Amino acid sequence: MTKNTNLHAPRGPSDHSVRDQVVEAATEHFGHFGYEKTTVSDLAKAIGFSKAYIYKFFDSKQAIGEVICTNRLAMIMAIVDSAIASAPTASEKLRCLFRALIEAGSDLFFHDRKLYDIAAVAARDKWPSAEAHEERLRHLIEQIILEGRQTGEFERKTPLDEAAHAIYLVMRPYVSPVQLQYNLETASSAAALLSSLILRSLSP
Amino acid sequence: MTKNTNLHAPRGPSDHSVRDQVVEAATEHFGHFGYEKTTVSDLAKAIGFSKAYIYKFFDSKQAIGEVICTNRLAMIMAIVDSAIASAPTASEKLRCLFRALIEAGSDLFFHDRKLYDIAAVAARDKWPSAEAHEERLRHLIEQIILEGRQTGEFERKTPLDEAAHAIYLVMRPYVSPVQLQYNLETASSAAALLSSLILRSLSP
Repeated sequence: MTKNTNLHAPRGPSDHSVRDQVVEAATEHFGHFGYEKTTVSDLAKAIGFSKAYIYKFFDSKQAIGEVICTNRLAMIMAIVDSAIASAPTASEKLRCLFRALIEAGSDLFFHDRKLYDIAAVAARDKWPSAEAHEERLRHLIEQIILEGRQTGEFERKTPLDEAAHAIYLVMRPYVSPVQLQYNLETASSAAALLSSLILRSLSP
Repeated sequence: MTKNTNLHAPRGPSDHSVRDQVVEAATEHFGHFGYEKTTVSDLAKAIGFSKAYIYKFFDSKQAIGEVICTNRLAMIMAIVDSAIASAPTASEKLRCLFRALIEAGSDLFFHDRKLYDIAAVAARDKWPSAEAHEERLRHLIEQIILEGRQTGEFERKTPLDEAAHAIYLVMRPYVSPVQLQYNLETASSAAALLSSLILRSLSP
């Protein structure tokens, strides 16, 4: 390994396999012990690297959390994308989108409670990974509305960005990890009722 | 004061002024020191009654919190009722309702942070006062929809309870104290966008 001299590249040696190794071990460690209560020292001790060595690859604990969070959100988006790909109409795509977001989010909540905490911290503290996820969702909603306007399923009077943002706001309490925890019990029945309301608001 | 022998009456002597005095002192005390961290002993010491004397009037700390919470929620509903009373149409009533709920809730949040915590605990733990508040709101929404259906402002196809419940769900993240804290920053712009979406969903 040679020291990376490019200022714009990630800090430390560009040895991807070591970075990946740290992320993998950190995912497992945070998954057991939680993100907020773990320090980089704890993590270093647990995964058998020195603290200094970890800092060669990551600026901070948050930088590691960001990679984990980005990976998880990418998994959620992959599930969402494949769920809506097979939906035949724009209306069905909106219903699928809402349902898939809640299912993927609840899965993360029930099966990976501690990792879910990273996503909750990310949403609360507005990490770039969480903001980018929001942005992608809003864009996806815009695309679906556009499609429905082209096929004549949806009205065309409301400005596109207004319609998309309002729909995103309806979904947010079930998408944002900090809020989903308060809505888990009612999430799937709420998704059905709210999808119908959204579709009524879009009818021509 | 004589011991109250009616099993269905509030516990202890029926001297309302003493009950009120405890509630008033507790409101102030919780307002300073928070609800969750204060015990009935702390409260008794601070307001100069014996713990046993307080227990003559209230079964538990939660029973005191319930009265405070009921009082606050009644204040919010009074603000809401007077806001919508002057609105000329059912559409305007819905907009006013949403706006007034957010304003009253944010006021409680910013000016009475510690008391707001009682409302948050009440919502989280589903206290009867919080559940009754939800029920009143849902009923109010139903009344407004009915009015709009009668005047021809709103569509009549969707079952009334479905429409009302879905609208309540759109408002809930801004009404429920536990969730409002995450939505405060964007609450007033969100209320405007979401009211428009709700009204589009109701258009005939």
